[in-house]
Amino acid sequence: MAQQIADRRDQDYVLHEMLNVAQFSETEKYGDFNKKTIDMVLSEARKFAVNEILPTQKTGDEEGVKLENGQVKVPPSFHKPYKLFCENEWVAMADAPEVGGQGLPHAVALACGELFTGANCAFLMYPGLTHGCGNIIASLGSDKQKELYLKKLYTGEWGGTMCLTEANAGSDVGALESVATPNDDGTYNIVGSKIFISGGDSDMVPNVIHPVLARIEGSPAGTRGISLFIVPKLWVNDDGSFGEDNDVVVTGVEHKMGIHGNATCSIAFGGKGKCRGTLIGEKNKGMKAMFLMMNEARQGVALQGHGFATTSYMNAVNYAKERVQSPNLLSMLDAEPKGVPIIQHPDVRRNLLIMKSYVEGMRSLLYYMGFCFDMVGTSEDEAVRDKYNGLIEIVTPVAKSYGTDKGFEVCSLGIQIYGGYGFIEEYPQAQLLRDCKITSIYEGTNGIQAMDLLGRKLGMKKGKPMMDLMGEIQAAIALAKEAGLDDMAAKVEAALNKVGECAMAIGGAAMSEKLLDAFGSATLFQECCGDLIMAWMHLWRAAVAQPKIEKAKKKDKAFYEGQVVTAKFFIEHMLPVGLGKMDSVKALTASIMEMPEDSFIG
Amino acid sequence: MAQQIADRRDQDYVLHEMLNVAQFSETEKYGDFNKKTIDMVLSEARKFAVNEILPTQKTGDEEGVKLENGQVKVPPSFHKPYKLFCENEWVAMADAPEVGGQGLPHAVALACGELFTGANCAFLMYPGLTHGCGNIIASLGSDKQKELYLKKLYTGEWGGTMCLTEANAGSDVGALESVATPNDDGTYNIVGSKIFISGGDSDMVPNVIHPVLARIEGSPAGTRGISLFIVPKLWVNDDGSFGEDNDVVVTGVEHKMGIHGNATCSIAFGGKGKCRGTLIGEKNKGMKAMFLMMNEARQGVALQGHGFATTSYMNAVNYAKERVQSPNLLSMLDAEPKGVPIIQHPDVRRNLLIMKSYVEGMRSLLYYMGFCFDMVGTSEDEAVRDKYNGLIEIVTPVAKSYGTDKGFEVCSLGIQIYGGYGFIEEYPQAQLLRDCKITSIYEGTNGIQAMDLLGRKLGMKKGKPMMDLMGEIQAAIALAKEAGLDDMAAKVEAALNKVGECAMAIGGAAMSEKLLDAFGSATLFQECCGDLIMAWMHLWRAAVAQPKIEKAKKKDKAFYEGQVVTAKFFIEHMLPVGLGKMDSVKALTASIMEMPEDSFIG
Repeated sequence: MAQQIADRRDQDYVLHEMLNVAQFSETEKYGDFNKKTIDMVLSEARKFAVNEILPTQKTGDEEGVKLENGQVKVPPSFHKPYKLFCENEWVAMADAPEVGGQGLPHAVALACGELFTGANCAFLMYPGLTHGCGNIIASLGSDKQKELYLKKLYTGEWGGTMCLTEANAGSDVGALESVATPNDDGTYNIVGSKIFISGGDSDMVPNVIHPVLARIEGSPAGTRGISLFIVPKLWVNDDGSFGEDNDVVVTGVEHKMGIHGNATCSIAFGGKGKCRGTLIGEKNKGMKAMFLMMNEARQGVALQGHGFATTSYMNAVNYAKERVQSPNLLSMLDAEPKGVPIIQHPDVRRNLLIMKSYVEGMRSLLYYMGFCFDMVGTSEDEAVRDKYNGLIEIVTPVAKSYGTDKGFEVCSLGIQIYGGYGFIEEYPQAQLLRDCKITSIYEGTNGIQAMDLLGRKLGMKKGKPMMDLMGEIQAAIALAKEAGLDDMAAKVEAALNKVGECAMAIGGAAMSEKLLDAFGSATLFQECCGDLIMAWMHLWRAAVAQPKIEKAKKKDKAFYEGQVVTAKFFIEHMLPVGLGKMDSVKALTASIMEMPEDSFIG
Repeated sequence: MAQQIADRRDQDYVLHEMLNVAQFSETEKYGDFNKKTIDMVLSEARKFAVNEILPTQKTGDEEGVKLENGQVKVPPSFHKPYKLFCENEWVAMADAPEVGGQGLPHAVALACGELFTGANCAFLMYPGLTHGCGNIIASLGSDKQKELYLKKLYTGEWGGTMCLTEANAGSDVGALESVATPNDDGTYNIVGSKIFISGGDSDMVPNVIHPVLARIEGSPAGTRGISLFIVPKLWVNDDGSFGEDNDVVVTGVEHKMGIHGNATCSIAFGGKGKCRGTLIGEKNKGMKAMFLMMNEARQGVALQGHGFATTSYMNAVNYAKERVQSPNLLSMLDAEPKGVPIIQHPDVRRNLLIMKSYVEGMRSLLYYMGFCFDMVGTSEDEAVRDKYNGLIEIVTPVAKSYGTDKGFEVCSLGIQIYGGYGFIEEYPQAQLLRDCKITSIYEGTNGIQAMDLLGRKLGMKKGKPMMDLMGEIQAAIALAKEAGLDDMAAKVEAALNKVGECAMAIGGAAMSEKLLDAFGSATLFQECCGDLIMAWMHLWRAAVAQPKIEKAKKKDKAFYEGQVVTAKFFIEHMLPVGLGKMDSVKALTASIMEMPEDSFIG
């Protein structure tokens, strides 16, 4: 049977041949994870993803979620794989064994996560958000909070969420209206309504833990007065036993375009005045807590966009190899031209190459980010940790936006490859597109990512993260030149220099009276960075592959050749479009802000 | 209440100020349609679209279609508006009154059609396909066929379809397996199965007329042996009365990602050996008949893509003016920054301007194509008719592909503007995206359009249509220079020249041993043409608007200023990306065909 979800050979290529993640086995932290162990873990993850999760992709979409008597019922088909997922310890892959984790290096956890989310993102969001909630408690929680909640979350025994959004406070978190009032016992009384809470409730678990942003009475307006609280669905007594119902009521589940299997809940906290929570982290520092979690959460959404894309790509390649339709262009004039598998048609090949180049480029970027986390987690040199932390900071908004935008594009091409069948729900491609659309919106819309990149990250530490990123790209350019790929290397170098010019132009404008014009081009600048990063990853891939072609055996040879050709494709065919975007950023049009508001509709 | 579907001011601008369609009232054919009459017709169309059709957009999506005992049940909410639509004579707007039409100029009919399809495309497809079926009979039918069917179709009393696709013959129509065997009475016995038949059956009409492609026994293989037949659901006797059931059986309706309200049917013809049809047009010339209808049908699909886009755009502008979220960037540091309508945020404005520029540019292109049809239909000068026919030929694949691809992009941005609400089905934006996806697939996938452009249209008549198109663009450049818009004019001129170079490069390669490489870049070349045409349309718009700004009254002033700023936006911010695509086409990568087939998946 054809491979599904993600190409194992390519996963191995990135983990071992590009990033050499087994190097971390030389550190104390990851001493258990040599190449062999990593490969075993990845094999187990794939087996689980294909056998247990993938079958729920369509069933979850069709069954959807239900709200009955205030209790969310997830798709029935989710129950069994959820139980197994927890038992197999996949919830907290990269966390310490003491708190229920597997202790995997981040890069390896990402490779496993890619398989799980690619198999069914709507399913994976339940343990994913649970893990995110656990992370908050691990980072900021008191000993008591950790004792009560952490292991329950990391083992998936209880569920977890993140409650930010309110009807009048979406991207503008500071405008929230939820209120916390101190009780005598040190807890807080919580009153407020939250919307768009992914995995907001579930009948797979007996309790759900909600981190809730709210303003303590008397705190300043805006983001400076927001605190974070841990609010369980069922109160948890100090000895860990369940207390009373905590007045956390699911008031609705959304009817969405996609991810039908995940319950997107509206939740009323304290509608009867009986909801209690405990402060986590410092008073009025709730936004800081959010920022602490942000890079990993956004990387998670980038992984989702990528997961949809890689599954759609694998489906498309398999389909294009089997579907026979129309003769090859060169045999059109034969007496009786015969149909060929559509993978032979130039336009179909181009679509597949676009998909491949985004999927593999994004895989490299995501694992690379995992690698950065692992460098931070293992290096004893502060300068090294700072460097990789900075790289994570600067790359995160690009990965989130580019990964989800291009993921969506890939899913759209994945439909196109199937022709009319792509539009039919019996085939898998339509759902992947529907599901994927949310990823460009939540965890900060992609427009917000662009503001983050231009407004916070570009000038961070006097531009050091951006300079470090450019240094990393230079290293790949040097490697490619060594491998004799001078033409490609020169093209990527030109793009690198041009993005540098863009950064100077837009960064300068953002600190001048042209501030608004700069932010008008922020999204396009972010795309330029994404295009450059893809070119970087493909150049790196080609530079590693090129010297291995000659001595490789048949199957590996095709793989390595494919790496070099894909890089050539991206750099020759796609990157020039990126260069055009860079010209546009440099021109920094004033038209966006000049447009009279009354002129949008006549 | 805010305007919906399409901006009336902009519709009027294109019809009257750009194209001066009232000029056709000086011809005999369109003597009745002066400006006043055109405006009245358009007002009636808008009233009907908003009041009768638009309310069925969501209901039709939710109700969907059902197949009960072999009979398709369309969404119940469609029945009443369908009856009124027919009574008001909207089915055959641009056809002669003698056969049930309204006799409108094509440009005006397109403006009305934009409103109808923008209000509910799934609904409009029933009369739309009925009209297309009527066109086939009007063009190729015998007197008897016309007498029996034409008026029934043009008035919408009966339904009509187009039956091309079979399970093993999608884009490759020549591979079809349906068979026609001559009967003694001059009819043919038809046996075959067709799939993806839009509006394939309906309980709104007593009969459905199916033009069916099939091969007469003994005819050559491939496209050269295909004939076209008229196959009614209920046989129609020579006196127009219904005969017996014609063995046309709907075997299934597809469960689709979008256009739920339209019945996409699988149909078995002659499963019991009792299906009769009559030949239409010449034997073995079925493909020619298809080609005859193709430009108008593809223009119709372009209009659909545009219809989704314009509705999504109008929704987005209205939403962005109302939705208050986050303070203006300039007031971020105020003591108590207040939220503003999101239309003030640079990134939102940019998204709206991208949407506006595609919507308005595409509106201009579509009405311009209608104008070309009207020139062909009214000019007494053969050279003029040839020129406009050629322009229709060359522009059609670009309009179909670009209109649907950019329509989809606009719908995706339309979701983005709504944030999380865009993903919720209670709001209108998600459905528009779901519905729109099919337009890049049917009536020839957009990849097929690119093959048509490169393989047939570019070199047609020794390149005269392409040269004429470039001449039309030159005329707008001259007009813009007259209006003092030299900078914009120069930029469009540079793009025009660059597309000329691309055409030479790719056209030359297509006739050399680089044939496959050329077709590998065909889609990108098609996009370049689309980008150039958008720039042309915006330059033309700005050139007409600029001289009017000074003396215009307030509302018109804002409109005209908006035209100039939108042109500036497109030419400064979007066109450079198109120039990048042109560089890529000129580079004509060989990587697409070099890619080893085994290298797509490792």
